[in-house]
Amino acid sequence: MEARYGALEAGGTKMVCAITDVEGGILDRCRIPTGHPEDCLPGIVDFFRGRVDALGIGTFGPVDVDPDSIRYGDIGACVKDGWSGFPLGRRLSDELGVPFSVDTDVNAACLGECTFGSSRGLGTVAYITVGTGIGVGLCISGKPFHGNRHPEGGHIKVARIPGDVMEGVCPYHPECIEGLASGPALRRRFCRDPSTVPRDDPGWNVEAEYLSQFVCTCLLMYSPDRIVMGGGVMGRTHLFGMVREKAVEHLGGYLDHDSLDDIVVPASLDGNQGVLGAAQLAIDWLS
Amino acid sequence: MEARYGALEAGGTKMVCAITDVEGGILDRCRIPTGHPEDCLPGIVDFFRGRVDALGIGTFGPVDVDPDSIRYGDIGACVKDGWSGFPLGRRLSDELGVPFSVDTDVNAACLGECTFGSSRGLGTVAYITVGTGIGVGLCISGKPFHGNRHPEGGHIKVARIPGDVMEGVCPYHPECIEGLASGPALRRRFCRDPSTVPRDDPGWNVEAEYLSQFVCTCLLMYSPDRIVMGGGVMGRTHLFGMVREKAVEHLGGYLDHDSLDDIVVPASLDGNQGVLGAAQLAIDWLS
Repeated sequence: MEARYGALEAGGTKMVCAITDVEGGILDRCRIPTGHPEDCLPGIVDFFRGRVDALGIGTFGPVDVDPDSIRYGDIGACVKDGWSGFPLGRRLSDELGVPFSVDTDVNAACLGECTFGSSRGLGTVAYITVGTGIGVGLCISGKPFHGNRHPEGGHIKVARIPGDVMEGVCPYHPECIEGLASGPALRRRFCRDPSTVPRDDPGWNVEAEYLSQFVCTCLLMYSPDRIVMGGGVMGRTHLFGMVREKAVEHLGGYLDHDSLDDIVVPASLDGNQGVLGAAQLAIDWLS
Repeated sequence: MEARYGALEAGGTKMVCAITDVEGGILDRCRIPTGHPEDCLPGIVDFFRGRVDALGIGTFGPVDVDPDSIRYGDIGACVKDGWSGFPLGRRLSDELGVPFSVDTDVNAACLGECTFGSSRGLGTVAYITVGTGIGVGLCISGKPFHGNRHPEGGHIKVARIPGDVMEGVCPYHPECIEGLASGPALRRRFCRDPSTVPRDDPGWNVEAEYLSQFVCTCLLMYSPDRIVMGGGVMGRTHLFGMVREKAVEHLGGYLDHDSLDDIVVPASLDGNQGVLGAAQLAIDWLS
């Protein structure tokens, strides 16, 4: 029988599970609200049991992504109830009786775009998510990059816009990009659900300014062929034009980009980039 | 006869040439002032002619580092007299009759540290130079990383210290790290040769602040095992402690680094990291 691959996208609010074929075709899927791990694991196990040959996991971090570590697939210290130190990969692997492969949510999404999306075949691709948190993943020649642990680009310091005195939402850093431009930061900035704020609200200029600084940092540090941007906040698609324009301005002609239209692009897989990247982790494991 | 390797470190003020064995032992060397390429090439060619089997070049940029490009080894648009578009690699290779391999000066220095220096065997190593310019190179598993072209990390925006109103020296960016913290920026800040400024001058705090921001960006974007810092400005070694301390402060406990003593380190090869990395490029080419 043809191999089947389990894919888990573990997010802060929901667990997306899917079963795919080797070409990333989704055969079945389900969503389970993220709660305490002992509350949401049984549903995940029930969904996959007996139906997959390997499991790929893209998860919120920090997570141990070193396959040679005895803590491979364990969640690190975090504020989510019950998750600090939880051996997510090993528990699922044990209960399902199949091997697992794990990476960060952003690396999985990046891998999804590089394998099944519009960035297929490109050499160096960064994936920025702007949602509950801000993060960046990187694939080089179609393989996720980790470094010593994994990048935490959402916590770089940004230069405040003069006059922007809003307190950031990051408990670690008063002026990091996640603290000033993530979904929760936007909610604080607008004092309401950002999805209800009209696109001509001047607050979006502030958001676009910080995101454009981050895009420039990614361009200058990674020299990527492409930067894919996803996550809930980027669902407000008017941000793309604003971010590109401000980034071109910041670069000041330095990287020969007259336009970033072909470099800074939306995710291309209808929100499935994370789960399809997780599937590819399983596919890579078995191949 | 045992193979001999030519190494050229092409810098803004001098061309350092060396002939090495396969273990990076320097058998002969010379320095030639950097002028118009037609003025300094003959001396380089004379030094290497008939004495080497391959040539490795680490050079100021921008430079085409894509071996599949017809412009491989050509210098890009730059302000140096005669160098814009100069086919440095091809000209030397033609005149010497040996193959060449080229990379950026910072990648070559990083490769030197990873191959012959204190970072040997580490997985992900960044090399920051702070001199006439500021740049960063990256080696992953002992191989230089390029991305689409090559990183230009020296041009990321930094957050100005409130009250620091000095105009930056970068013609492209009013507030990039190179513009505010390179050697020429320091000369402007101190109104004299920075090498003569005592270590308790408060201007060093400003310098350390900007460099620490850059170190944090490298830590968060690359997740390196080590950051090696070199270049003329880092010859003022009191900066290391200041930069590490401020960087730990900026990270706010986020990456579990109580100290960066073992992570942010000086170059270990007595100023030979660039030329030894260039030698390794030649060694890799022939092996």
